Amino acid sequence: MRPGMPGLLFAGQMKPFLIGIAGCTGSGKTTVARRIYQSLHLDSAAFIDHDAYYHDLAHMPVEERQRMNFDHPDSLDNDLLIGQLERLLAGEAVEKPVYDFTRHTRAAETVRIAPRHVILVDGILLFADARLREMFDLKTFVDTEADVRFIRRLRRDTETRGRSLEAVIEQYLGTVRPMHFESVEPTKRYADVILPRGGQNTAGIEVFAARIRERLAEKARAEAAEVGQGV
Amino acid sequence: MRPGMPGLLFAGQMKPFLIGIAGCTGSGKTTVARRIYQSLHLDSAAFIDHDAYYHDLAHMPVEERQRMNFDHPDSLDNDLLIGQLERLLAGEAVEKPVYDFTRHTRAAETVRIAPRHVILVDGILLFADARLREMFDLKTFVDTEADVRFIRRLRRDTETRGRSLEAVIEQYLGTVRPMHFESVEPTKRYADVILPRGGQNTAGIEVFAARIRERLAEKARAEAAEVGQGV
Repeated sequence: MRPGMPGLLFAGQMKPFLIGIAGCTGSGKTTVARRIYQSLHLDSAAFIDHDAYYHDLAHMPVEERQRMNFDHPDSLDNDLLIGQLERLLAGEAVEKPVYDFTRHTRAAETVRIAPRHVILVDGILLFADARLREMFDLKTFVDTEADVRFIRRLRRDTETRGRSLEAVIEQYLGTVRPMHFESVEPTKRYADVILPRGGQNTAGIEVFAARIRERLAEKARAEAAEVGQGV
Repeated sequence: MRPGMPGLLFAGQMKPFLIGIAGCTGSGKTTVARRIYQSLHLDSAAFIDHDAYYHDLAHMPVEERQRMNFDHPDSLDNDLLIGQLERLLAGEAVEKPVYDFTRHTRAAETVRIAPRHVILVDGILLFADARLREMFDLKTFVDTEADVRFIRRLRRDTETRGRSLEAVIEQYLGTVRPMHFESVEPTKRYADVILPRGGQNTAGIEVFAARIRERLAEKARAEAAEVGQGV
Protein backbone atom coordinates (compact mmCIF):
# COMPACT_ATOMS: atom_id res chain seq x y z
CA MET A 1 0.00 0.00 0.00
CA ARG A 2 1.23 3.46 -0.91
CA PRO A 3 2.28 5.62 2.04
CA GLY A 4 -0.02 8.54 2.73
CA MET A 5 -3.11 6.68 1.47
CA PRO A 6 -4.23 4.72 4.54
CA GLY A 7 -7.45 2.78 4.22
CA LEU A 8 -7.39 2.67 0.43
CA LEU A 9 -7.54 -0.71 -1.24
CA PHE A 10 -6.17 0.18 -4.65
CA ALA A 11 -2.54 1.22 -4.80
CA GLY A 12 -2.30 0.43 -8.52
CA GLN A 13 -3.37 2.56 -11.45
CA MET A 14 -6.19 0.37 -12.75
CA LYS A 15 -9.44 1.58 -11.30
CA PRO A 16 -12.16 -0.93 -10.37
CA PHE A 17 -14.29 -2.33 -13.19
CA LEU A 18 -17.76 -0.81 -12.81
CA ILE A 19 -20.55 -2.86 -14.35
CA GLY A 20 -24.17 -1.84 -14.80
CA ILE A 21 -26.88 -4.49 -15.11
CA ALA A 22 -30.23 -3.01 -16.09
CA GLY A 23 -33.41 -4.61 -17.39
CA CYS A 24 -37.15 -4.52 -17.14
CA THR A 25 -38.93 -5.32 -13.91
CA GLY A 26 -39.18 -9.10 -13.56
CA SER A 27 -36.64 -9.68 -16.36
CA GLY A 28 -34.40 -11.72 -14.08
CA LYS A 29 -31.72 -9.04 -13.94
CA THR A 30 -31.09 -9.59 -10.24
CA THR A 31 -30.66 -13.32 -10.88
CA VAL A 32 -28.21 -12.49 -13.68
CA ALA A 33 -26.33 -10.06 -11.44
CA ARG A 34 -26.13 -12.61 -8.62
CA ARG A 35 -25.02 -15.40 -10.96
CA ILE A 36 -22.25 -13.17 -12.35
CA TYR A 37 -21.32 -12.19 -8.79
CA GLN A 38 -21.16 -15.85 -7.74
CA SER A 39 -18.98 -16.76 -10.74
CA LEU A 40 -16.28 -14.39 -9.43
CA HIS A 41 -14.22 -14.70 -6.27
CA LEU A 42 -16.31 -13.21 -3.49
CA ASP A 43 -13.43 -11.03 -2.37
CA SER A 44 -13.01 -9.44 -5.80
CA ALA A 45 -16.57 -8.15 -6.34
CA ALA A 46 -19.07 -5.90 -4.61
CA PHE A 47 -22.79 -5.91 -5.39
CA ILE A 48 -25.09 -2.88 -5.22
CA ASP A 49 -28.83 -2.84 -5.93
CA HIS A 50 -30.23 0.46 -7.23
CA ASP A 51 -33.52 -0.47 -5.48
CA ALA A 52 -31.86 0.30 -2.15
CA TYR A 53 -31.61 3.96 -3.21
CA TYR A 54 -35.34 4.78 -3.49
CA HIS A 55 -36.14 8.10 -1.85
CA ASP A 56 -37.41 7.83 1.71
CA LEU A 57 -41.17 8.61 1.72
CA ALA A 58 -41.50 8.76 5.52
CA HIS A 59 -42.81 12.32 5.28
CA MET A 60 -45.90 11.17 3.29
CA PRO A 61 -49.12 9.53 4.52
CA VAL A 62 -48.94 5.73 3.92
CA GLU A 63 -51.74 5.71 1.31
CA GLU A 64 -50.07 8.44 -0.70
CA ARG A 65 -46.80 6.47 -0.72
CA GLN A 66 -48.51 3.50 -2.40
CA ARG A 67 -49.66 5.75 -5.24
CA MET A 68 -46.16 7.04 -6.02
CA ASN A 69 -44.60 6.16 -9.35
CA PHE A 70 -41.68 3.93 -8.40
CA ASP A 71 -40.78 3.39 -12.01
CA HIS A 72 -39.97 7.02 -12.66
CA PRO A 73 -36.26 7.92 -12.65
CA ASP A 74 -36.92 10.71 -10.09
CA SER A 75 -38.05 8.16 -7.50
CA LEU A 76 -34.41 7.13 -7.00
CA ASP A 77 -31.71 9.00 -5.10
CA ASN A 78 -29.08 8.94 -7.85
CA ASP A 79 -27.01 11.66 -6.23
CA LEU A 80 -26.43 9.36 -3.28
CA LEU A 81 -25.66 6.35 -5.53
CA ILE A 82 -23.24 8.31 -7.73
CA GLY A 83 -21.46 9.71 -4.68
CA GLN A 84 -21.09 6.23 -3.18
CA LEU A 85 -19.88 4.73 -6.48
CA GLU A 86 -17.25 7.49 -6.76
CA ARG A 87 -16.03 6.65 -3.27
CA LEU A 88 -15.91 2.92 -4.07
CA LEU A 89 -13.93 3.73 -7.25
CA ALA A 90 -11.54 5.74 -5.09
CA GLY A 91 -11.07 2.71 -2.85
CA GLU A 92 -13.25 3.77 0.09
CA ALA A 93 -16.01 1.77 1.81
CA VAL A 94 -19.57 3.13 1.79
CA GLU A 95 -22.77 2.65 3.82
CA LYS A 96 -25.44 1.43 1.41
CA PRO A 97 -28.98 2.36 2.47
CA VAL A 98 -31.61 -0.30 3.25
CA TYR A 99 -35.10 0.24 1.84
CA ASP A 100 -38.32 -1.05 3.34
CA PHE A 101 -40.58 -1.82 0.36
CA THR A 102 -43.65 -2.41 2.53
CA ARG A 103 -43.50 1.03 4.16
CA HIS A 104 -41.53 2.85 1.39
CA THR A 105 -39.05 4.20 3.87
CA ARG A 106 -35.30 4.03 4.35
CA ALA A 107 -34.39 1.86 7.32
CA ALA A 108 -32.24 3.13 10.16
CA GLU A 109 -29.54 0.54 9.49
CA THR A 110 -27.14 0.51 6.51
CA VAL A 111 -25.03 -2.18 4.85
CA ARG A 112 -21.29 -1.61 4.68
CA ILE A 113 -19.88 -2.19 1.17
CA ALA A 114 -16.12 -2.53 0.96
CA PRO A 115 -14.29 -1.44 -2.24
CA ARG A 116 -13.57 -4.28 -4.67
CA HIS A 117 -11.93 -4.77 -8.08
CA VAL A 118 -15.33 -5.38 -9.67
CA ILE A 119 -18.42 -3.43 -8.69
CA LEU A 120 -21.73 -4.78 -9.99
CA VAL A 121 -24.75 -2.47 -9.88
CA ASP A 122 -28.24 -3.61 -10.84
CA GLY A 123 -31.49 -1.69 -11.35
CA ILE A 124 -34.29 -1.12 -13.86
CA LEU A 125 -33.51 2.60 -14.31
CA LEU A 126 -29.74 2.44 -14.16
CA PHE A 127 -29.27 3.66 -17.74
CA ALA A 128 -31.93 6.39 -17.56
CA ASP A 129 -29.48 8.79 -15.88
CA ALA A 130 -26.75 9.95 -18.26
CA ARG A 131 -24.35 10.59 -15.36
CA LEU A 132 -24.67 6.95 -14.25
CA ARG A 133 -24.43 5.60 -17.83
CA GLU A 134 -21.14 7.37 -18.35
CA MET A 135 -19.64 5.89 -15.19
CA PHE A 136 -20.00 2.25 -16.24
CA ASP A 137 -17.17 0.43 -18.00
CA LEU A 138 -19.61 -2.21 -19.21
CA LYS A 139 -23.39 -2.11 -19.48
CA THR A 140 -25.75 -5.05 -19.93
CA PHE A 141 -29.53 -5.06 -20.29
CA VAL A 142 -31.42 -8.20 -19.27
CA ASP A 143 -34.41 -8.70 -21.51
CA THR A 144 -37.35 -11.05 -21.05
CA GLU A 145 -40.75 -11.26 -22.70
CA ALA A 146 -43.50 -9.10 -21.14
CA ASP A 147 -45.84 -11.87 -19.94
CA VAL A 148 -43.03 -13.74 -18.18
CA ARG A 149 -41.92 -10.49 -16.57
CA PHE A 150 -45.41 -9.76 -15.25
CA ILE A 151 -45.73 -13.25 -13.78
CA ARG A 152 -42.40 -12.90 -11.97
CA ARG A 153 -43.32 -9.48 -10.60
CA LEU A 154 -46.70 -10.79 -9.46
CA ARG A 155 -45.07 -13.65 -7.55
CA ARG A 156 -42.41 -11.42 -5.99
CA ASP A 157 -44.76 -8.66 -4.89
CA THR A 158 -47.42 -10.97 -3.42
CA GLU A 159 -45.00 -13.41 -1.79
CA THR A 160 -42.24 -11.17 -0.44
CA ARG A 161 -43.56 -7.62 -0.45
CA GLY A 162 -46.97 -8.17 1.12
CA ARG A 163 -49.05 -6.73 -1.77
CA SER A 164 -52.49 -7.97 -2.84
CA LEU A 165 -53.12 -9.39 -6.31
CA GLU A 166 -55.30 -6.41 -7.27
CA ALA A 167 -52.73 -3.90 -5.95
CA VAL A 168 -50.02 -5.53 -8.09
CA ILE A 169 -52.18 -5.51 -11.25
CA GLU A 170 -53.31 -1.93 -10.64
CA GLN A 171 -49.73 -0.74 -10.10
CA TYR A 172 -48.53 -2.71 -13.16
CA LEU A 173 -51.13 -1.31 -15.58
CA GLY A 174 -51.18 2.15 -14.01
CA THR A 175 -47.48 2.94 -13.76
CA VAL A 176 -45.09 -0.01 -14.28
CA ARG A 177 -46.17 -0.80 -17.85
CA PRO A 178 -46.41 2.80 -19.15
CA MET A 179 -43.13 3.71 -17.45
CA HIS A 180 -41.51 0.62 -18.92
CA PHE A 181 -42.16 1.96 -22.42
CA GLU A 182 -41.27 5.52 -21.43
CA SER A 183 -38.21 5.06 -19.22
CA VAL A 184 -36.85 1.51 -19.27
CA GLU A 185 -37.25 0.06 -22.79
CA PRO A 186 -35.57 3.09 -24.48
CA THR A 187 -32.45 2.66 -22.32
CA LYS A 188 -31.83 -0.79 -23.82
CA ARG A 189 -30.02 0.92 -26.69
CA TYR A 190 -27.28 2.14 -24.36
CA ALA A 191 -26.30 -1.40 -23.37
CA ASP A 192 -23.11 -2.96 -24.70
CA VAL A 193 -24.69 -6.38 -24.48
CA ILE A 194 -28.33 -7.49 -24.19
CA LEU A 195 -28.99 -10.78 -22.40
CA PRO A 196 -32.28 -12.40 -23.42
CA ARG A 197 -34.14 -14.98 -21.28
CA GLY A 198 -32.86 -13.51 -18.00
CA GLY A 199 -31.41 -15.70 -15.28
CA GLN A 200 -31.86 -18.94 -17.24
CA ASN A 201 -29.47 -17.82 -19.97
CA THR A 202 -26.37 -19.61 -18.75
CA ALA A 203 -24.40 -19.29 -22.01
CA GLY A 204 -25.03 -15.53 -22.12
CA ILE A 205 -24.12 -15.07 -18.46
CA GLU A 206 -20.90 -17.00 -19.09
CA VAL A 207 -20.03 -14.65 -21.97
CA PHE A 208 -20.45 -11.64 -19.74
CA ALA A 209 -18.61 -13.22 -16.78
CA ALA A 210 -15.70 -14.18 -19.07
CA ARG A 211 -15.02 -10.52 -19.88
CA ILE A 212 -14.98 -9.68 -16.16
CA ARG A 213 -12.62 -12.57 -15.40
CA GLU A 214 -10.37 -11.42 -18.25
CA ARG A 215 -10.32 -7.90 -16.85
CA LEU A 216 -9.51 -9.23 -13.34
CA ALA A 217 -6.61 -11.20 -14.83
CA GLU A 218 -5.35 -8.06 -16.64
CA LYS A 219 -5.50 -6.19 -13.37
CA ALA A 220 -3.61 -8.93 -11.52
CA ARG A 221 -0.90 -8.89 -14.22
CA ALA A 222 -0.65 -5.07 -14.11
CA GLU A 223 -0.29 -5.15 -10.33
CA ALA A 224 2.31 -7.92 -10.45
CA ALA A 225 4.31 -5.85 -12.99
CA GLU A 226 4.02 -2.81 -10.74
CA VAL A 227 5.26 -4.74 -7.70
CA GLY A 228 8.12 -6.01 -9.86
CA GLN A 229 9.05 -2.42 -10.68
CA GLY A 230 9.16 -1.54 -6.98
CA VAL A 231 6.38 1.05 -7.19
CA MET B 1 -1.49 -36.60 -33.85
CA ARG B 2 -3.12 -39.89 -33.05
CA PRO B 3 -2.05 -42.82 -35.26
CA GLY B 4 -4.72 -44.00 -37.64
CA MET B 5 -6.33 -40.54 -37.98
CA PRO B 6 -4.26 -38.93 -40.72
CA GLY B 7 -5.35 -35.49 -41.86
CA LEU B 8 -7.30 -34.71 -38.72
CA LEU B 9 -6.37 -31.61 -36.79
CA PHE B 10 -7.92 -32.40 -33.44
CA ALA B 11 -6.41 -35.25 -31.52
CA GLY B 12 -7.85 -34.03 -28.21
CA GLN B 13 -11.32 -34.52 -26.82
CA MET B 14 -12.50 -30.89 -26.93
CA LYS B 15 -14.35 -30.28 -30.13
CA PRO B 16 -14.05 -26.92 -31.91
CA PHE B 17 -16.08 -24.02 -30.51
CA LEU B 18 -18.86 -23.32 -33.03
CA ILE B 19 -20.20 -19.78 -32.93
CA GLY B 20 -23.23 -18.42 -34.75
CA ILE B 21 -23.52 -14.70 -35.48
CA ALA B 22 -26.94 -13.75 -36.83
CA GLY B 23 -28.64 -10.38 -37.23
CA CYS B 24 -30.82 -8.36 -39.51
CA THR B 25 -29.66 -7.36 -42.95
CA GLY B 26 -27.44 -4.29 -42.64
CA SER B 27 -27.11 -4.72 -38.86
CA GLY B 28 -23.34 -4.84 -39.07
CA LYS B 29 -23.18 -8.53 -38.20
CA THR B 30 -20.45 -9.20 -40.76
CA THR B 31 -18.40 -6.35 -39.27
CA VAL B 32 -18.92 -7.87 -35.82
CA ALA B 33 -17.96 -11.33 -37.09
CA ARG B 34 -14.81 -9.98 -38.75
CA ARG B 35 -13.83 -7.94 -35.69
CA ILE B 36 -14.20 -11.03 -33.48
CA TYR B 37 -12.23 -13.04 -36.04
CA GLN B 38 -9.47 -10.44 -36.08
CA SER B 39 -9.27 -10.37 -32.27
CA LEU B 40 -8.29 -14.07 -32.32
CA HIS B 41 -5.13 -15.64 -33.65
CA LEU B 42 -5.69 -16.17 -37.36
CA ASP B 43 -4.61 -19.77 -37.12
CA SER B 44 -7.15 -20.58 -34.42
CA ALA B 45 -10.33 -19.46 -36.20
CA ALA B 46 -12.20 -20.18 -39.42
CA PHE B 47 -14.88 -17.87 -40.83
CA ILE B 48 -17.92 -18.99 -42.82
CA ASP B 49 -20.60 -16.74 -44.32
CA HIS B 50 -24.06 -18.29 -44.67
CA ASP B 51 -24.55 -16.03 -47.73
CA ALA B 52 -22.17 -18.25 -49.67
CA TYR B 53 -24.70 -21.09 -49.38
CA TYR B 54 -27.59 -19.56 -51.36
CA HIS B 55 -29.10 -22.06 -53.78
CA ASP B 56 -27.76 -21.84 -57.33
CA LEU B 57 -30.48 -20.31 -59.56
CA ALA B 58 -28.67 -21.01 -62.86
CA HIS B 59 -31.67 -23.06 -64.06
CA MET B 60 -33.97 -19.96 -63.91
CA PRO B 61 -34.32 -17.07 -66.37
CA VAL B 62 -32.31 -14.04 -65.08
CA GLU B 63 -35.43 -11.88 -64.49
CA GLU B 64 -37.10 -14.58 -62.45
CA ARG B 65 -33.97 -14.92 -60.27
CA GLN B 66 -34.22 -11.22 -59.26
CA ARG B 67 -37.77 -11.77 -58.03
CA MET B 68 -36.83 -14.63 -55.72
CA ASN B 69 -37.21 -14.15 -51.99
CA PHE B 70 -33.63 -14.26 -50.73
CA ASP B 71 -34.76 -13.60 -47.18
CA HIS B 72 -36.73 -16.82 -46.91
CA PRO B 73 -35.00 -19.66 -45.06
CA ASP B 74 -35.60 -22.00 -48.03
CA SER B 75 -33.39 -19.88 -50.28
CA LEU B 76 -30.32 -21.25 -48.46
CA ASP B 77 -28.72 -24.66 -48.86
CA ASN B 78 -28.60 -25.56 -45.17
CA ASP B 79 -28.03 -29.24 -45.88
CA LEU B 80 -24.72 -28.32 -47.51
CA LEU B 81 -23.75 -25.94 -44.69
CA ILE B 82 -24.65 -28.44 -41.94
CA GLY B 83 -22.69 -31.18 -43.70
CA GLN B 84 -19.65 -28.92 -44.02
CA LEU B 85 -19.85 -27.79 -40.40
CA GLU B 86 -20.03 -31.41 -39.26
CA ARG B 87 -16.87 -32.15 -41.25
CA LEU B 88 -15.09 -29.09 -39.81
CA LEU B 89 -16.10 -30.23 -36.30
CA ALA B 90 -14.61 -33.64 -37.13
CA GLY B 91 -11.35 -31.94 -38.09
CA GLU B 92 -11.67 -32.14 -41.89
CA ALA B 93 -11.24 -29.31 -44.40
CA VAL B 94 -14.19 -28.34 -46.63
CA GLU B 95 -14.74 -26.54 -49.94
CA LYS B 96 -16.99 -23.55 -49.23
CA PRO B 97 -19.09 -22.48 -52.22
CA VAL B 98 -18.69 -19.03 -53.80
CA TYR B 99 -21.89 -17.16 -54.68
CA ASP B 100 -22.29 -14.59 -57.44
CA PHE B 101 -24.84 -12.06 -56.12
CA THR B 102 -25.18 -10.30 -59.47
CA ARG B 103 -26.16 -13.45 -61.34
CA HIS B 104 -27.55 -15.46 -58.40
CA THR B 105 -25.46 -18.47 -59.29
CA ARG B 106 -22.85 -20.58 -57.55
CA ALA B 107 -19.39 -19.98 -59.04
CA ALA B 108 -17.27 -22.81 -60.39
CA GLU B 109 -14.51 -22.16 -57.87
CA THR B 110 -14.67 -22.89 -54.13
CA VAL B 111 -12.76 -21.63 -51.09
CA ARG B 112 -10.92 -24.19 -49.00
CA ILE B 113 -11.65 -23.81 -45.27
CA ALA B 114 -9.31 -25.65 -42.96
CA PRO B 115 -10.57 -26.92 -39.57
CA ARG B 116 -9.83 -24.59 -36.66
CA HIS B 117 -10.44 -24.46 -32.89
CA VAL B 118 -13.01 -21.71 -33.36
CA ILE B 119 -15.48 -21.68 -36.23
CA LEU B 120 -17.41 -18.45 -36.74
CA VAL B 121 -20.52 -18.57 -38.94
CA ASP B 122 -22.50 -15.46 -39.86
CA GLY B 123 -25.86 -15.03 -41.62
CA ILE B 124 -29.26 -13.38 -41.24
CA LEU B 125 -31.17 -16.68 -41.17
CA LEU B 126 -28.72 -18.75 -39.18
CA PHE B 127 -31.10 -19.27 -36.25
CA ALA B 128 -34.19 -19.94 -38.40
CA ASP B 129 -33.16 -23.58 -38.87
CA ALA B 130 -33.49 -25.60 -35.65
CA ARG B 131 -30.81 -28.06 -36.81
CA LEU B 132 -28.30 -25.21 -37.18
CA ARG B 133 -29.35 -23.58 -33.91
CA GLU B 134 -28.66 -26.76 -32.00
CA MET B 135 -25.16 -27.07 -33.44
CA PHE B 136 -23.86 -23.76 -32.08
CA ASP B 137 -22.06 -23.59 -28.74
CA LEU B 138 -22.68 -19.86 -28.59
CA LYS B 139 -25.18 -17.70 -30.46
CA THR B 140 -25.16 -13.94 -30.83
CA PHE B 141 -27.64 -11.69 -32.62
CA VAL B 142 -26.41 -8.32 -33.90
CA ASP B 143 -29.16 -5.74 -33.64
CA THR B 144 -29.33 -2.28 -35.17
CA GLU B 145 -32.19 0.16 -35.69
CA ALA B 146 -34.23 -0.28 -38.89
CA ASP B 147 -33.37 3.02 -40.63
CA VAL B 148 -29.64 2.53 -40.13
CA ARG B 149 -29.96 -1.00 -41.44
CA PHE B 150 -31.77 0.13 -44.59
CA ILE B 151 -29.13 2.79 -45.29
CA ARG B 152 -26.33 0.26 -44.97
CA ARG B 153 -28.10 -2.21 -47.27
CA LEU B 154 -28.77 0.53 -49.81
CA ARG B 155 -25.08 1.47 -49.91
CA ARG B 156 -23.90 -2.13 -50.13
CA ASP B 157 -26.30 -3.20 -52.86
CA THR B 158 -25.78 -0.14 -55.08
CA GLU B 159 -22.01 0.07 -54.61
CA THR B 160 -20.88 -3.55 -54.59
CA ARG B 161 -23.74 -5.62 -56.00
CA GLY B 162 -24.64 -3.54 -59.05
CA ARG B 163 -28.30 -2.91 -58.12
CA SER B 164 -30.27 0.26 -58.94
CA LEU B 165 -31.74 2.45 -56.19
CA GLU B 166 -35.31 1.51 -57.18
CA ALA B 167 -34.47 -2.19 -57.33
CA VAL B 168 -33.05 -2.03 -53.78
CA ILE B 169 -36.11 -0.18 -52.41
CA GLU B 170 -38.53 -2.50 -54.20
CA GLN B 171 -36.73 -5.60 -52.89
CA TYR B 172 -36.57 -4.09 -49.39
CA LEU B 173 -40.27 -3.25 -49.12
CA GLY B 174 -41.43 -6.27 -51.11
CA THR B 175 -39.51 -9.07 -49.39
CA VAL B 176 -36.66 -7.98 -47.09
CA ARG B 177 -38.81 -6.02 -44.64
CA PRO B 178 -41.75 -8.47 -44.41
CA MET B 179 -39.35 -11.42 -44.15
CA HIS B 180 -37.40 -9.60 -41.47
CA PHE B 181 -40.50 -9.58 -39.26
CA GLU B 182 -41.47 -13.10 -40.26
CA SER B 183 -38.14 -14.95 -40.26
CA VAL B 184 -35.29 -12.91 -38.79
CA GLU B 185 -36.63 -10.83 -35.87
CA PRO B 186 -38.30 -13.84 -34.17
CA THR B 187 -34.96 -15.72 -34.10
CA LYS B 188 -33.43 -13.04 -31.88
CA ARG B 189 -34.91 -14.86 -28.88
CA TYR B 190 -32.67 -17.87 -29.51
CA ALA B 191 -29.50 -15.82 -29.07
CA ASP B 192 -27.41 -16.15 -25.93
CA VAL B 193 -26.26 -12.57 -26.31
CA ILE B 194 -27.68 -9.66 -28.34
CA LEU B 195 -25.19 -7.02 -29.51
CA PRO B 196 -26.81 -3.63 -30.17
CA ARG B 197 -25.28 -0.96 -32.42
CA GLY B 198 -23.53 -3.50 -34.67
CA GLY B 199 -19.89 -3.14 -35.65
CA GLN B 200 -19.39 0.08 -33.67
CA ASN B 201 -20.10 -1.65 -30.36
CA THR B 202 -16.52 -2.26 -29.28
CA ALA B 203 -17.33 -2.98 -25.61
CA GLY B 204 -19.93 -5.57 -26.63
CA ILE B 205 -17.63 -7.21 -29.17
CA GLU B 206 -14.91 -7.41 -26.49
CA VAL B 207 -17.34 -9.18 -24.15
CA PHE B 208 -18.08 -11.79 -26.78
CA ALA B 209 -14.45 -12.18 -27.85
CA ALA B 210 -13.38 -12.63 -24.20
CA ARG B 211 -15.53 -15.77 -23.90
CA ILE B 212 -13.93 -17.20 -27.05
CA ARG B 213 -10.42 -16.41 -25.80
CA GLU B 214 -11.28 -18.06 -22.46
CA ARG B 215 -12.51 -21.13 -24.27
CA LEU B 216 -9.32 -21.26 -26.40
CA ALA B 217 -7.25 -21.04 -23.22
CA GLU B 218 -9.30 -23.90 -21.67
CA LYS B 219 -8.65 -25.94 -24.78
CA ALA B 220 -4.92 -25.22 -24.68
CA ARG B 221 -4.79 -26.28 -21.01
CA ALA B 222 -6.75 -29.47 -21.72
CA GLU B 223 -4.42 -30.36 -24.57
CA ALA B 224 -1.32 -29.62 -22.48
CA ALA B 225 -2.68 -31.90 -19.75
CA GLU B 226 -3.36 -34.61 -22.33
CA VAL B 227 0.18 -34.38 -23.71
CA GLY B 228 1.43 -34.55 -20.10
CA GLN B 229 -0.49 -37.81 -19.63
CA GLY B 230 1.10 -39.28 -22.75
CA VAL B 231 -2.15 -39.67 -24.68
